[in-house]
Amino acid sequence: MKIALAQINPKVGDFQNNANKIRSFIDRAGNSGAHLVVFPELALTGYPPKDLLDVPAFIDENLKTLNDIVSSAHNIAVIVGFVDRNKRPYGKLVHNAAAFIQDRKIVSVHHKSLLPTYDVFDECRHFEPAHDIFPVKFMGYTLGISICEDIWNDEEFWPRPLYEINPIENLISQGANLIINISSSPFSVGKHDTIRLRMLTHAALKYKVPFVYVNQTGGNDDLVFDGNSTVINARGKLIAQAASFREDLVVVDIEKPVEQEPLKNYTPVETIHQALLLGLRDYVGKCGFKKTVIGLSGGIDSAVTAALAVESLGNGNVIGVSMPSRFSSQGSIDDAVELAQNLGIAYKSFPINDIFETYRHTLNDEFKGLPFDITEENLQARIRGNVLMALSNKYGYLVLTTGNKSELAVGYCTLYGDMSGGLALISDVPKTMVYELAWYINREMEVIPRNSIDKPPSAELKPNQLDQDCLPPYDVLDALLKAYIEDAKSIDEIIALGFNEKIVHEIVRKVNRNEYKRRQAAPGIKVTSKAFGSGRRMPIAQGFAC
Amino acid sequence: MKIALAQINPKVGDFQNNANKIRSFIDRAGNSGAHLVVFPELALTGYPPKDLLDVPAFIDENLKTLNDIVSSAHNIAVIVGFVDRNKRPYGKLVHNAAAFIQDRKIVSVHHKSLLPTYDVFDECRHFEPAHDIFPVKFMGYTLGISICEDIWNDEEFWPRPLYEINPIENLISQGANLIINISSSPFSVGKHDTIRLRMLTHAALKYKVPFVYVNQTGGNDDLVFDGNSTVINARGKLIAQAASFREDLVVVDIEKPVEQEPLKNYTPVETIHQALLLGLRDYVGKCGFKKTVIGLSGGIDSAVTAALAVESLGNGNVIGVSMPSRFSSQGSIDDAVELAQNLGIAYKSFPINDIFETYRHTLNDEFKGLPFDITEENLQARIRGNVLMALSNKYGYLVLTTGNKSELAVGYCTLYGDMSGGLALISDVPKTMVYELAWYINREMEVIPRNSIDKPPSAELKPNQLDQDCLPPYDVLDALLKAYIEDAKSIDEIIALGFNEKIVHEIVRKVNRNEYKRRQAAPGIKVTSKAFGSGRRMPIAQGFAC
Repeated sequence: MKIALAQINPKVGDFQNNANKIRSFIDRAGNSGAHLVVFPELALTGYPPKDLLDVPAFIDENLKTLNDIVSSAHNIAVIVGFVDRNKRPYGKLVHNAAAFIQDRKIVSVHHKSLLPTYDVFDECRHFEPAHDIFPVKFMGYTLGISICEDIWNDEEFWPRPLYEINPIENLISQGANLIINISSSPFSVGKHDTIRLRMLTHAALKYKVPFVYVNQTGGNDDLVFDGNSTVINARGKLIAQAASFREDLVVVDIEKPVEQEPLKNYTPVETIHQALLLGLRDYVGKCGFKKTVIGLSGGIDSAVTAALAVESLGNGNVIGVSMPSRFSSQGSIDDAVELAQNLGIAYKSFPINDIFETYRHTLNDEFKGLPFDITEENLQARIRGNVLMALSNKYGYLVLTTGNKSELAVGYCTLYGDMSGGLALISDVPKTMVYELAWYINREMEVIPRNSIDKPPSAELKPNQLDQDCLPPYDVLDALLKAYIEDAKSIDEIIALGFNEKIVHEIVRKVNRNEYKRRQAAPGIKVTSKAFGSGRRMPIAQGFAC
Repeated sequence: MKIALAQINPKVGDFQNNANKIRSFIDRAGNSGAHLVVFPELALTGYPPKDLLDVPAFIDENLKTLNDIVSSAHNIAVIVGFVDRNKRPYGKLVHNAAAFIQDRKIVSVHHKSLLPTYDVFDECRHFEPAHDIFPVKFMGYTLGISICEDIWNDEEFWPRPLYEINPIENLISQGANLIINISSSPFSVGKHDTIRLRMLTHAALKYKVPFVYVNQTGGNDDLVFDGNSTVINARGKLIAQAASFREDLVVVDIEKPVEQEPLKNYTPVETIHQALLLGLRDYVGKCGFKKTVIGLSGGIDSAVTAALAVESLGNGNVIGVSMPSRFSSQGSIDDAVELAQNLGIAYKSFPINDIFETYRHTLNDEFKGLPFDITEENLQARIRGNVLMALSNKYGYLVLTTGNKSELAVGYCTLYGDMSGGLALISDVPKTMVYELAWYINREMEVIPRNSIDKPPSAELKPNQLDQDCLPPYDVLDALLKAYIEDAKSIDEIIALGFNEKIVHEIVRKVNRNEYKRRQAAPGIKVTSKAFGSGRRMPIAQGFAC
């Protein structure tokens, strides 16, 4: 039996285009001699559809589109993710489902049993879990059709299973000898190599059956799906793998497998780089934008953001804007110019001093006798945000904000200032990883001016300002933030790791106090195991650990 | 048996103060001769603790605090909500729990069975449901201790139960003859009168047992808890009721009930008014602010916001700021002055024309030959946002934004402009209800200038601009938005209600296109059955119904 892994990039709610794409992959799979073509979880609707699942017309349109696909699936069987209605008189109204289509008919429908409801996932919000789990016969095989999380609960693989039941074990006990898993499993750094592949291999060896894993690719808002669809045979060997971070169609003959090595292990910086390029390209494209505009400070964050944007969208679609104030060093201005030249992007300059002085004049009587403080610093950042938004409004550009995760964590950023924009591209990238990205971007030639990398980071909002005046060195800060945010360690546990007690208290306090800023932040692209945004939902008004 | 309903207002994560409050209510209840005092759901941690539940130290602190309370509960039994550990080797790590305390010992612990995971609720994200449901004996009664949602699944009361099991039926079948329900049930307009009271009455009559319902009060971020704790006897009559929107301690003798009528049915505008006052007071107080600053345009939205702020916080804690541009009418400026005088608040004026002209000058070469458009309109709103934020930064004021729900729905507001601020007080109040609030506020004397109510709404960002130039009349718009957002009706269904087809398409498109603005909006106070924010989670990049 030949199985085609149809690793597609659907757009949420764009039924027409998703159906066209699915039909085209069905045709290509058929032409390749495949007997069965497998699409990702919710391939029809795109994942995650979020509260569109509460809209009855959305469910209707999805079912209508499924019927269109059924009628076009001739000479090949199809497994495709869609939203099924729950026909029981209680519970959530819909199931996360897989249709098994043969001879232009839906032969069986399989519901997802395990509904992830943690981190960025909200599946219990929308879906009723499966009430029946059953395998299905096809070409001499007994297929166990499962959906994403269904394979993520092995009590041997995980130290603590999240769910009481194990649907894979159930399918195997009913005679399944080939497990198919359709997924929309978002990227985070290291997840594919260190978790998914190991988990699939473990399961194939445990049950002595092949596992066919088909994942979505593409970016949807803050999530990037890395693809990496994979087939592992009953000996635990990889026998097919699709591309990372792009659409792909891979056909595998399950009876004549060619065992192969996993593609080279990409380094963290390489996969984050790929994820950001895809996440940006899809956010811009799926939102209907073409061009982006970026404030270039001469610093490393805006340089990395601009370089990524050029690689993702092309240099004709990126506009760099310098907005120097009296506190901007000539070096920084020069670095911004040099970056724009290296990238071959349009470059504009709007000095903000006159605007800044007019604000100060307007507020002069009010603030008389009061020292220059964070007010005036933020004002500069906000003027810059306004100028970028003016360009966005006038020309329809998408503003990319340039803040990194370390800044966002401790609130070292200005709401309505440098936080203004439609997408915060690197807002889940810790500062130390921003440096790694800069070196990676410069791996063949100097794209990002060396000076932007080497100089000590500064917001340049007052004289002689350095990030390190009010923050610990970034390698210390990032390690501390990882312990607190990604690993959810307590203050005492972090101190026990060897961090300075005073610094730990100060940083934790800053993280908690700045939840209000993050609540109003633009969406970012998730690349770590715990991103701010939908993955970390903290109260603002709260009294713990402050 | 005398039961005390301890309707408290905890702060999320503030264990020390929550425990002090609980101890003080235990003492007061004991002094009133109560045998049992009942606190709300998660009274110890405050509700909703959100992802603080993922922080191990948060769970530890909550258990430690519970032990402190246990040791101080003498001569009275106590039921109090806390977070219990899940002791099974699988599933979520914690339970939403009630401790039943007698003689300074925890006699039994009861876990919540039904975990709401819809709208603003994320309980499946954090909690493992109950595995055992059992009643407990006390003073000759068999108590059925349940938690909030546990009573919200009656298959006779609801057209479609959300859950397969009914924990109340289970408790009754085990002999429970008094149901206690500890809740943290957030306010939405009409919910208490038209749902909760009816549901409790239905349940009491169905099972012929009394229902003791204890709800949290207070505001936590976007949610307001209205209290309204209630006891219904086995005849379905109300025998005790606590205050709305404030802490209260009510003692009821369950053997000598005094049947009473529910307090007068408050009108929607009255309850929304109360909810906004409490939500604002608690957001400001629990975030550690004292004073607020509001941009006064002379229009009705800012007038209502300022009047609510004065009533909630006192006139000494509200600063009104006028920021006229060349497009501001003298009438509007006068209305703002009059409002400030009526309210007795500090009033400042910062004309923004010089700043606006300096921006235009800075962008003059860039925008040469291009018409005045939304760019220049937004710029004015953003300058005003910056001035308010400058006052916030300099003096530590909280900026209250003044936009209403109708505007936010269709994107008739400026990101980083009038949307700048820490709390969007009336962002879940439809414009038609803003008018009702204005009349209500003026019920005894003219607080809001009559002219602010009577004049046609205008953003005054260009000459002769009126809201109605690009929006349907607000009564039409609000009815249409209610159908689309609160009732989740499809375009076809809304048209079938009698709305103009073109307008429906246009408004729905606007709602969907402006999700990106709402994603960056300040939190608001939920007053309707479907607020933007955590209650409505839509993708930004999507292709449905656009």
